[in-house]
Amino acid sequence: MGTPRDYSSILMPSYSIRPLNFNQYLHLGKSHKLFQGEFINSICNNEEDPYLYYILSGKINICFLRTDGSSLVIATREAGNVFQSEYRGFASIAGDRLRFIAVENSVIISFTKKQLFDLMEQDRQIMDDFLYVVHMFYATLCHRLMNTACLSSSQRFLTWLDKLCRINTPDRNGHHIIECDLTQQQIADLLFIHLTTCNRLITGLEKEKIIKKTKTHIYVYNSKKINEYLLDESKIVY
Amino acid sequence: MGTPRDYSSILMPSYSIRPLNFNQYLHLGKSHKLFQGEFINSICNNEEDPYLYYILSGKINICFLRTDGSSLVIATREAGNVFQSEYRGFASIAGDRLRFIAVENSVIISFTKKQLFDLMEQDRQIMDDFLYVVHMFYATLCHRLMNTACLSSSQRFLTWLDKLCRINTPDRNGHHIIECDLTQQQIADLLFIHLTTCNRLITGLEKEKIIKKTKTHIYVYNSKKINEYLLDESKIVY
Repeated sequence: MGTPRDYSSILMPSYSIRPLNFNQYLHLGKSHKLFQGEFINSICNNEEDPYLYYILSGKINICFLRTDGSSLVIATREAGNVFQSEYRGFASIAGDRLRFIAVENSVIISFTKKQLFDLMEQDRQIMDDFLYVVHMFYATLCHRLMNTACLSSSQRFLTWLDKLCRINTPDRNGHHIIECDLTQQQIADLLFIHLTTCNRLITGLEKEKIIKKTKTHIYVYNSKKINEYLLDESKIVY
Repeated sequence: MGTPRDYSSILMPSYSIRPLNFNQYLHLGKSHKLFQGEFINSICNNEEDPYLYYILSGKINICFLRTDGSSLVIATREAGNVFQSEYRGFASIAGDRLRFIAVENSVIISFTKKQLFDLMEQDRQIMDDFLYVVHMFYATLCHRLMNTACLSSSQRFLTWLDKLCRINTPDRNGHHIIECDLTQQQIADLLFIHLTTCNRLITGLEKEKIIKKTKTHIYVYNSKKINEYLLDESKIVY
């Protein structure tokens, strides 16, 4: 999930599509090193608590831990992008806990809430960046919700393929050649479905020559058929 | 969904838990009347586009329309609370569209992005309110995602009941008496499950005397059993 292709290949950008002006103020922040696998639980309750984190290098997963110990990756954020700490415990309900985990060795720069407010007051571009960051995160959460809620596993998979086709121009043969290096496990995680279901769906669609998944690409040979199956799920037998 | 009990009874507050300082600046905004069922598609692309809406009276549902015409209510916002327009089309992907629908006759006051930035510059309480609003919306989206992703219908229902028990103190008999006037359809919508599944789950748990649902309350007589079922779903036969 590391290039500007992410949006068109998985619909879950982890990079910032535009450079953020926060990088002009990094000297004001506080630097933290996180080794791969290390995590922080950051909750901002007061003005002086760390609130905004700029990722200088590495990669951070924003995760929810459930009461039963299972965890879900909500979003990934990479170098040049920022993430916000939890605010006043709003996100952690009952046993759920928000956690920020370093997927690689990472260096992050934290700004307190007061620092962010000071910067926003001085520099309107920071306000603009903040809005941008907030709405990119809304979009990620909404897309995942829309790709999950009230949809069966096969509907989730087909909805995702359909969206990928809609934002990628087909070649002259009407085939969509979509760069996508996700493993089947990563696709399953993205769509909140089981790995075995994901395997079965891919194999089934491959047998019908509707798609082909390689290590680097998804080839969609028949996007019309994907639409048909979406409208009438009973036609899918796998 | 109209009182401060919402949080403890459904986990989806539609009101603002604290009064917002935006109400001091309503004379600067632009007033709009929406009849019940009327909707707006608001996308903020420029400084002068409406961005923030304060609800003076009525109730607004924030909905996603899917390509297939089905729609999902993501959140509800009521008088005294605010909602943000879509920002630069981030939320609308492929066929998905964000829509703001009046559930009752409503009067809303819009502020442009420039106006919001001006207010935030002048009045730090507005910055603080904005952060509050953003994180309340994150929380709503995250809770719904956490209550849906990778969970079967019965797990969703039990997870929800478990959370309600955890934030409501039991009485001296260990019973949780939770104010909840949602219909079974509304519970189904909240958990993104089918109505028939919802009915079956409630009836099943009632037969075992674990819960009782009335028009105004959910009585949980045995929260321990709910925990057990959550850990071992195979024990649920309905």
